[in-house]
Amino acid sequence: MQTLLLGPDDVVECADLPSVIDAVEAAFAADARGDTIMPAKSYIDLPEYNGDFRSMPAYVHVGDWDAAAVKWVNVHPDNPADHDLPTVLGTLIYSDPETAFPLAVMDGTNLTRLRTGAAAAVATDHLARSDADSLGLVGAGVQAATQLEAIAAVRDIERVVVADRNDEKQQAFVTQFADRFDARAGSLADAAECDVLSTITPVESPIVEREWLGEYTHVNAIGADAEGKHEHDDRTLLDAKLVIDDYEQCTHSGEINVPWHEGVLSDDDIYGELGRIVAGELPGREPGDGITVFDSTGLAIQDVAAAHVAYENARAVGEGSDFTLVGT
Amino acid sequence: MQTLLLGPDDVVECADLPSVIDAVEAAFAADARGDTIMPAKSYIDLPEYNGDFRSMPAYVHVGDWDAAAVKWVNVHPDNPADHDLPTVLGTLIYSDPETAFPLAVMDGTNLTRLRTGAAAAVATDHLARSDADSLGLVGAGVQAATQLEAIAAVRDIERVVVADRNDEKQQAFVTQFADRFDARAGSLADAAECDVLSTITPVESPIVEREWLGEYTHVNAIGADAEGKHEHDDRTLLDAKLVIDDYEQCTHSGEINVPWHEGVLSDDDIYGELGRIVAGELPGREPGDGITVFDSTGLAIQDVAAAHVAYENARAVGEGSDFTLVGT
Repeated sequence: MQTLLLGPDDVVECADLPSVIDAVEAAFAADARGDTIMPAKSYIDLPEYNGDFRSMPAYVHVGDWDAAAVKWVNVHPDNPADHDLPTVLGTLIYSDPETAFPLAVMDGTNLTRLRTGAAAAVATDHLARSDADSLGLVGAGVQAATQLEAIAAVRDIERVVVADRNDEKQQAFVTQFADRFDARAGSLADAAECDVLSTITPVESPIVEREWLGEYTHVNAIGADAEGKHEHDDRTLLDAKLVIDDYEQCTHSGEINVPWHEGVLSDDDIYGELGRIVAGELPGREPGDGITVFDSTGLAIQDVAAAHVAYENARAVGEGSDFTLVGT
Repeated sequence: MQTLLLGPDDVVECADLPSVIDAVEAAFAADARGDTIMPAKSYIDLPEYNGDFRSMPAYVHVGDWDAAAVKWVNVHPDNPADHDLPTVLGTLIYSDPETAFPLAVMDGTNLTRLRTGAAAAVATDHLARSDADSLGLVGAGVQAATQLEAIAAVRDIERVVVADRNDEKQQAFVTQFADRFDARAGSLADAAECDVLSTITPVESPIVEREWLGEYTHVNAIGADAEGKHEHDDRTLLDAKLVIDDYEQCTHSGEINVPWHEGVLSDDDIYGELGRIVAGELPGREPGDGITVFDSTGLAIQDVAAAHVAYENARAVGEGSDFTLVGT
């Protein structure tokens, strides 16, 4: 038996966003039903390299398929400047849960990007107004492009406003999407007043004011991924229907981690986990709702779901390379 | 940049036992010095498949090298009968800690076998008498052969006695090693009276009596790897200079787990961790010592050490296949 190897291009080729969104949505529902196993992330902190490794194992059982995987991923902020390498490099082992055979080893960097976009799309689908047609983006990096692609798969997005301190990145983003959207550069406030807003910055002091948001804006808060980080005004979190991906992860390192630890925001201010909405246990957007917020930290079950799509599609079309990785 | 792929044959080719023994010994010493990071294993239990997955991440810093890795491994006892696959299938991602680049993905099954043999060799080197020349083996499987190869690298083994309920396996083992050792089949008692004894069975009721051991026998207790398993008489553990690989793992699932939980054996009966002996913080065998026992559960730092040897040797001789696994 051979293991399928999928490099970064294979993953992009095979893990099409609409399928990943469906699989991630199904994984969130499975999580709410108790049909997932997701041990806490294990961290290896290496201050001597200003970096860390994270090991993220999970099992997902979704009606017609189940799978297990571990993602081994890192955050090394000095990589771009010192080593001409990305800050984050992921590798994932995707296994058949019945036998534990490693069906595939694949690039986890693009996979992470795709499943993060997919989670925001799932949240947007359940929390944004159905007629939402404008998307604000704070941060013009690779994840911003994925947010746009993913959210455009669940809402008929026409107008896009991108804000970034780096004029060059901001303009490049506008140029990249000008043929498909009414895309333009704008201020943080311009982005914030859109129907949907995705924020993807690593800031430790909030940069998006409560007052800038539209009356019914749905916010995907993507940037915070470590203790001390948050992008949004506490008042935004307190005023919103506040949805999280996972209680442990969000209170530890998500958008809510700072106000939650400071006692500004309590468990009572959290509406619930996205999985419960997807599973139908809790309503998503309701008629009286104003702003909504999705606090996304990124779950290992999302990785399993995205890897499932990449693997099945790759096998179907013959993408990737086979290798005898383990003895049978 | 490319990731090196090492299949099972590559691992055997490149991870030569003497080098793995040295690297594992260095990793144990690093652990005692505090130069390792080893989060607890994460388990995913899948009773519907009578199996489980374990995620084992670790970082090791040994003087002239450091490395990080995660091993994704399982125990699926029905695999041989139901799927014609091994019970245990391991895959390991080996990474540069400075940048987190995945330097290699390799077979973790042979690697596990080699690092388990290496740990027993390290323990034997510090705990067996220097003139030990006979080795008893209980269980005649693949790990028994590795125990013999590894222990013969640290002691001048001449006589080998192998005990196994399965006559065919027992005889095949004798035949395999007849040209290099005075190897013969024997009873459990015959094996136990040797200078060194390695036991590698998954039993839940002890099978090796205290009285059978030689006056100075050093025992490597390899078989117990889950709650409820143990191979040795409680009196053996109580009478011995009792060395463990890791306190958490041994009390949870090692040879001592049953008597420790029953209160028959307490922390006071444990002499110490192997790393402290290797690091020179505790003496190994001393003149007055009789029997000694090493309780081996298998540590993630051993995997990192063995993977380091496999990777460096493979790069040196051009073994393995390069693949663009992550985008840079």
